[in-house]
Amino acid sequence: LRNGYPEVIFCQGKALPHIQGIVQKMLERGERNILATRASRAVYEAVAEITGEAEYHEDARIVVVRRQPVRLKTEKPVAVVTGGTADIAVAEEAAVTAEVLGNRVERLYDVGVAGLHRLLSNTGVLFSANVVIAVAGMEGALASVVGGLVDKPVIAVPTSVGYGANFGGLSALLSMLNSCASGVSVVNIDNGFGAGYLASMINQM
Amino acid sequence: LRNGYPEVIFCQGKALPHIQGIVQKMLERGERNILATRASRAVYEAVAEITGEAEYHEDARIVVVRRQPVRLKTEKPVAVVTGGTADIAVAEEAAVTAEVLGNRVERLYDVGVAGLHRLLSNTGVLFSANVVIAVAGMEGALASVVGGLVDKPVIAVPTSVGYGANFGGLSALLSMLNSCASGVSVVNIDNGFGAGYLASMINQM
Amino acid sequence: LRNGYPEVIFCQGKALPHIQGIVQKMLERGERNILATRASRAVYEAVAEITGEAEYHEDARIVVVRRQPVRLKTEKPVAVVTGGTADIAVAEEAAVTAEVLGNRVERLYDVGVAGLHRLLSNTGVLFSANVVIAVAGMEGALASVVGGLVDKPVIAVPTSVGYGANFGGLSALLSMLNSCASGVSVVNIDNGFGAGYLASMINQM
Amino acid sequence: LRNGYPEVIFCQGKALPHIQGIVQKMLERGERNILATRASRAVYEAVAEITGEAEYHEDARIVVVRRQPVRLKTEKPVAVVTGGTADIAVAEEAAVTAEVLGNRVERLYDVGVAGLHRLLSNTGVLFSANVVIAVAGMEGALASVVGGLVDKPVIAVPTSVGYGANFGGLSALLSMLNSCASGVSVVNIDNGFGAGYLASMINQM
Amino acid sequence: LRNGYPEVIFCQGKALPHIQGIVQKMLERGERNILATRASRAVYEAVAEITGEAEYHEDARIVVVRRQPVRLKTEKPVAVVTGGTADIAVAEEAAVTAEVLGNRVERLYDVGVAGLHRLLSNTGVLFSANVVIAVAGMEGALASVVGGLVDKPVIAVPTSVGYGANFGGLSALLSMLNSCASGVSVVNIDNGFGAGYLASMINQM
Amino acid sequence: LRNGYPEVIFCQGKALPHIQGIVQKMLERGERNILATRASRAVYEAVAEITGEAEYHEDARIVVVRRQPVRLKTEKPVAVVTGGTADIAVAEEAAVTAEVLGNRVERLYDVGVAGLHRLLSNTGVLFSANVVIAVAGMEGALASVVGGLVDKPVIAVPTSVGYGANFGGLSALLSMLNSCASGVSVVNIDNGFGAGYLASMINQM
Amino acid sequence: LRNGYPEVIFCQGKALPHIQGIVQKMLERGERNILATRASRAVYEAVAEITGEAEYHEDARIVVVRRQPVRLKTEKPVAVVTGGTADIAVAEEAAVTAEVLGNRVERLYDVGVAGLHRLLSNTGVLFSANVVIAVAGMEGALASVVGGLVDKPVIAVPTSVGYGANFGGLSALLSMLNSCASGVSVVNIDNGFGAGYLASMINQM
Amino acid sequence: LRNGYPEVIFCQGKALPHIQGIVQKMLERGERNILATRASRAVYEAVAEITGEAEYHEDARIVVVRRQPVRLKTEKPVAVVTGGTADIAVAEEAAVTAEVLGNRVERLYDVGVAGLHRLLSNTGVLFSANVVIAVAGMEGALASVVGGLVDKPVIAVPTSVGYGANFGGLSALLSMLNSCASGVSVVNIDNGFGAGYLASMINQM
Ligand SMILES: Nc1ncnc2c1ncn2[C@@H]1O[C@H](COP(=O)(O)O)[C@@H](O)[C@H]1O
Ligand SMILES: Nc1ncnc2c1ncn2[C@@H]1O[C@H](COP(=O)(O)O)[C@@H](O)[C@H]1O
Ligand SMILES: Nc1ncnc2c1ncn2[C@@H]1O[C@H](COP(=O)(O)O)[C@@H](O)[C@H]1O
Ligand SMILES: Nc1ncnc2c1ncn2[C@@H]1O[C@H](COP(=O)(O)O)[C@@H](O)[C@H]1O
Ligand SMILES: [Mg+2]
Ligand SMILES: [Mg+2]
Ligand SMILES: [Mg+2]
Ligand SMILES: [Mg+2]
Ligand SMILES: [Mg+2]
Ligand SMILES: [Mg+2]
Ligand SMILES: [Mg+2]
Ligand SMILES: [Mg+2]
Repeated sequence: LRNGYPEVIFCQGKALPHIQGIVQKMLERGERNILATRASRAVYEAVAEITGEAEYHEDARIVVVRRQPVRLKTEKPVAVVTGGTADIAVAEEAAVTAEVLGNRVERLYDVGVAGLHRLLSNTGVLFSANVVIAVAGMEGALASVVGGLVDKPVIAVPTSVGYGANFGGLSALLSMLNSCASGVSVVNIDNGFGAGYLASMINQM
Repeated sequence: LRNGYPEVIFCQGKALPHIQGIVQKMLERGERNILATRASRAVYEAVAEITGEAEYHEDARIVVVRRQPVRLKTEKPVAVVTGGTADIAVAEEAAVTAEVLGNRVERLYDVGVAGLHRLLSNTGVLFSANVVIAVAGMEGALASVVGGLVDKPVIAVPTSVGYGANFGGLSALLSMLNSCASGVSVVNIDNGFGAGYLASMINQM
Repeated sequence: LRNGYPEVIFCQGKALPHIQGIVQKMLERGERNILATRASRAVYEAVAEITGEAEYHEDARIVVVRRQPVRLKTEKPVAVVTGGTADIAVAEEAAVTAEVLGNRVERLYDVGVAGLHRLLSNTGVLFSANVVIAVAGMEGALASVVGGLVDKPVIAVPTSVGYGANFGGLSALLSMLNSCASGVSVVNIDNGFGAGYLASMINQM
Repeated sequence: LRNGYPEVIFCQGKALPHIQGIVQKMLERGERNILATRASRAVYEAVAEITGEAEYHEDARIVVVRRQPVRLKTEKPVAVVTGGTADIAVAEEAAVTAEVLGNRVERLYDVGVAGLHRLLSNTGVLFSANVVIAVAGMEGALASVVGGLVDKPVIAVPTSVGYGANFGGLSALLSMLNSCASGVSVVNIDNGFGAGYLASMINQM
Repeated sequence: LRNGYPEVIFCQGKALPHIQGIVQKMLERGERNILATRASRAVYEAVAEITGEAEYHEDARIVVVRRQPVRLKTEKPVAVVTGGTADIAVAEEAAVTAEVLGNRVERLYDVGVAGLHRLLSNTGVLFSANVVIAVAGMEGALASVVGGLVDKPVIAVPTSVGYGANFGGLSALLSMLNSCASGVSVVNIDNGFGAGYLASMINQM
Repeated sequence: LRNGYPEVIFCQGKALPHIQGIVQKMLERGERNILATRASRAVYEAVAEITGEAEYHEDARIVVVRRQPVRLKTEKPVAVVTGGTADIAVAEEAAVTAEVLGNRVERLYDVGVAGLHRLLSNTGVLFSANVVIAVAGMEGALASVVGGLVDKPVIAVPTSVGYGANFGGLSALLSMLNSCASGVSVVNIDNGFGAGYLASMINQM
Repeated sequence: LRNGYPEVIFCQGKALPHIQGIVQKMLERGERNILATRASRAVYEAVAEITGEAEYHEDARIVVVRRQPVRLKTEKPVAVVTGGTADIAVAEEAAVTAEVLGNRVERLYDVGVAGLHRLLSNTGVLFSANVVIAVAGMEGALASVVGGLVDKPVIAVPTSVGYGANFGGLSALLSMLNSCASGVSVVNIDNGFGAGYLASMINQM
Repeated sequence: LRNGYPEVIFCQGKALPHIQGIVQKMLERGERNILATRASRAVYEAVAEITGEAEYHEDARIVVVRRQPVRLKTEKPVAVVTGGTADIAVAEEAAVTAEVLGNRVERLYDVGVAGLHRLLSNTGVLFSANVVIAVAGMEGALASVVGGLVDKPVIAVPTSVGYGANFGGLSALLSMLNSCASGVSVVNIDNGFGAGYLASMINQM
């Protein structure tokens, strides 16, 4: 289990019966909604065998077992932006996590620096957000551009999207760590969950 | 200049007359307090030649030109913790930055995992903080330990303190990025200013 | 065969008939128990074809050909602790190795820094151990935390568990090498066998 | 000597008498202007001892021995842009090189992504340029942003400016290589000369 | 869609229906030829279901939807050279891209430094070219050799061809970045498209 | 102060008055011998100003403040071996640490694999030791050779001795981590203190 | 084709018909024996379809098309030694290459440093050899040990055998490059062919 | 002393009195010429104090104590070639070493790929050599080019000459290891001595 919000399961590398066992115990123990991340469709089906309350967010690769309605804990939105369409899986992991934790989420996808005009003609979403999650692979420049535009915390998520000298996300990671814009911090490569969780924590302060 | 809070000068690698010139222009332009980071004593003296309002924070290597009293913008404290005594320079960069930006700062230094009891017998500071800045070199485990204890945002600052297989801060950086505690995000190696700025931004939301 | 305990076969990358041949020769030559590490179930079945004395430790991926009862060579226990559940395979490789070599082993799993309280409420196992094997992936902070608590040798085993900036175990490896706790040394990433073997050697001094 | 334009001397690591010897030979051999790059003031003085035609471009660390007036070979300008002021030394190496080779150069400095508005309010220089040289350290995002704005070749020059996880220019280098904007290519870290030379070659096609 | 030539689809990692959707929209919107790179035969077949104008360049892994005849925009040729035969896939990606964009392309394959005589007995192609694309894996020396021979821009494309210490193309990449020949710049490992696009841009200036 | 043996000061990067202050406090608090590692002669002189009991081990760069005679806690010797003469500084740091902690230490220096015969004609020291510390830079093969000869724990200390592709000790570090001899574990590059401390801990079990 | 001995085909990553085409052309052109390296059994069968003279060396993954008997060009033997059994594939690539080129080859396998006695009790093979090829993965110490024993050229071949911190052969590669024994040089990771070819060249001088 | 040629001293990092001591002992023990590598002028002067037979090869940074005339052991020449003039120090270390060991040495400097014509118009030296030492920094392409031209062993010496993405010689090292020319092997970065020693060994077979 991850700490902080205990009802989260990281499914990657776990066997289906093992996952079912964990969900079963959580169901017995309590009331809160359960989140299973890095979940394939097979994971969803295994969970659905146990409980009728499971729903699958395919893009996000997340299973939510919805035991109680999600109530917004704040009106202030979290914005999730991506550089390309290939970053959407990671972005959705962040977005769905934030939503389940009670945040309003605004999505702005495929607005990377090669299409800067699309970002600049959608600054409304950025400027009205309370926290921004910037998800990008390849050169990861999006985080710096967004950080330069807004005066709110920017959580940068490097992705492993790319090839060649991106070395599994290293290029975006280093780029984001070296961002010369203020207010930017970074989580692990492809760690959409961590970004969504932290964004929620900040948004509800 | 850095964005966000424009009156900040990064002095590393800048010549003294160049720094004097920038300070001069800022003085002419406005009223806000000026922050010069990575400032040697020689930088301080150069700035003091221009204005009587300069004060030097030696540990933090920061010069503050105090044009107006700093007013607390919130009562909620930011905690700054370090693993060892060698991390204090970076921690002070963060702490002084946050203070100048109007935050109350609580320091808890030299409480790294090799002296875990000292951390555990001072959890009061951690639990009452609204944001925590965790500064550590070598294995950087402090960020994970702190992240596992508190439910507030933790900004992890890897430092270049160490030798051998720390490779200039790489060990602490990777360690912090891979933190399995939730709510932890990371800034560049030795980037105390960035951490203090972001902590202030979050603390005043 | 290698030095130390000659009846050990490293199966990874070896063909089944090749493994059968090695086991056959060992059986003919002597009396001691045989250990086959990195063994899939298929390896187990191939060995079981040759001898009725084979038993499979699935979690540890170890086949033991038990030719004589294992006798405890010392009463003092070796503790094996892990950060997460995904580290258990490596931990079991260490634990089963130490057991077959005649040591009492105490297991304490999933007590990583994100669940520090679980570690702190189980210090009994740590404090009564004569040697501790600390197995962890991701940020590998467990080794430092354990090393800071106990005054006995800590053998740190970084694992390749994680993703993104863990770079195949590099983050945990560097973290453990830079441990600022005294008494910690490190073996190769995922090398449970080496840790179990060394722990046994130290424990029986 | 570098190929292509033979009258260029790379001074770094060469002794003063050695440099004087090379200049002497070039003077005897021909008519063309001589360029000495990575030249300290001491190099300039050593060259000035030999010939009255030496001029020193301090920011660019270039000595030009001007044997004939530089004639513009084309009216079309080369734009040189930088992310920060610390990148100016490399940018000037590029700019002076291009100028000596007969190009009109437009400079646009300190327009990095943290001050994106300054770039966006100066797009005139970019749009009228025939080739753009984008010089940036830290996260190197400038190259992608510029590449996304213009439809002309962009030569990206990563610089070693920064600290921590920039690893001597690696972060900017990887960022630029992974640029998702079309028309961007990259030269070695801090290689202003190479960029200026290539820009001139393209500009005069 | 990205800047530059909007009708390009990067197929790697995209699902077939997703690709079909993008092509469909492009067909509706306009007249220009469509390029789909990193396209398997399955991608070709999926596109061919939608339009009769699709043609497959197998070596280049490119689908071209030819809506209008490609007209040469200039008579000056682009040369594409490779070190080995294994580099041909990347070279063809560059060559077909440049052709579709209206350039005459001359191919000179398998002329790496181990067969230098083959390069030297074919310098005609090099010397008559206006831009050269040099594609090589392993030690990547071809770019330097070509750059030393010609006085035209050389776009170097490192490939991931090789094994062992080539580390996925790193050896060729570093080699090309450090080229001591003037006029050489580098794109990402295996980025044939980027090289073809940039060559076309330069060739049509 | 850290765990384990609290009276140890790591002097690297600490100012002389700071070190004097720490020593002063330790002197007031207790009786045990004090160890100051990474100590220059200037550190020694600063400590000698405070107390007459300071002695300087120049090769080891260690200051010992000897408040009570060191008593052997065990008769069993610790062997310290080095590959070359340049590794002696690190080896002495280990040896003096182990001696101050009450161990008999046998030194065997400059017996690296290029002079294997010297090692093989001195195996007496190795075979009679209870723990072996193997200190080597460059290719670090010594640890494997020693680990293959003895059946006792081998603590491998990679050193930063070497040049070129040793990358600050990386070659020896990786070599030692990959040792195929059993019973070998590794500490940080140049960490003689850590090896001496751990050897003492094991030797006195 | 590789230079030097033109009748060699590197099969990895080549399609079967492509390989058949190359062999066909070679057969038409000449008389010399053909070597196909990195050849799977399927490659062998494809070549056997074309010519009855193909023979398959399974361990070496080499197909030899034997058009004329191999004559020894010298009586002096080349020794090929390996650290473990897993290195045998690479060693055989070297050995078969050297044999086909007319050398007598002595094999000494699985004599790595963890079983040093096996090496020391077989020094006859080493001392009578004219050139030695040392093949080892993991820590690669074998090359240094052999280089320290013999006064003949040692060609070191690092292999990718191992796991964890061997990083695909990097540990053995760096270890061999840093060998402090004289007379050792290194070829690419897993490059048995290159070692066999060079050994033959030296042996026949 | 090391194996091979025992009268060699590696001076880097050794104190002058230490070096004098070693020379003194060698003088007492025997007759052979002594070689001191990585020797500054100060080392030379220290050695000259002890013996009148010392001579200093400044470019090579080698002191030779000539106790007996060097006799050629073979007429066959060793060729030493460099890419640039900055590589000459390393090349001279190789050349002087080979000369002292009794070889005729032909030098061909500054013939790197950027001046390929200079190499091609001097192939006489290459073709008449029995062994070639190729010394190059930056992209290290020289080794491949030379290896492609000659049918004799090529010993490649990467140098740390360069800047930026050469990362202390890594670019040349990787380039040379990946050479697709046959007959090329590699020694450590800047290891001229090792290359000269090995060349001599091969040349005198
Ligand atoms: N999981 C493991 N990781 C590392 N080394 C191992 C492992 N299991 C066995 N070994 C070592 O490998 C040797 C056997 O290797 P082999 O002869 O290749 O089967 C044993 O004697 C051990 O020293
Ligand atoms: N092989 C390639 N490598 C790198 N970039 C490419 C490649 N093919 C196309 N592109 C770029 O990717 C853009 C399309 O990306 P997408 O919108 O993800 O399909 C194009 O406009 C090009 O700039
Ligand atoms: N040479 C050394 N290398 C690594 N750690 C050391 C060394 N010397 C002392 N230490 C550790 O550093 C601690 C003291 O650190 P400090 O409080 O910063 O002086 C000691 O208790 C040891 O654990
Ligand atoms: N420049 C050099 N680079 C690498 N190894 C060298 C060099 N010069 C001498 N050596 C080796 O170092 C040995 C002497 O080392 P030492 O005993 O430390 O003086 C010689 O026998 C050579 O094997
Ligand atoms: Mg901002
Ligand atoms: Mg937390
Ligand atoms: Mg401890
Ligand atoms: Mg563009
Ligand atoms: Mg050129
Ligand atoms: Mg052993
Ligand atoms: Mg030798
Ligand atoms: Mg050759």
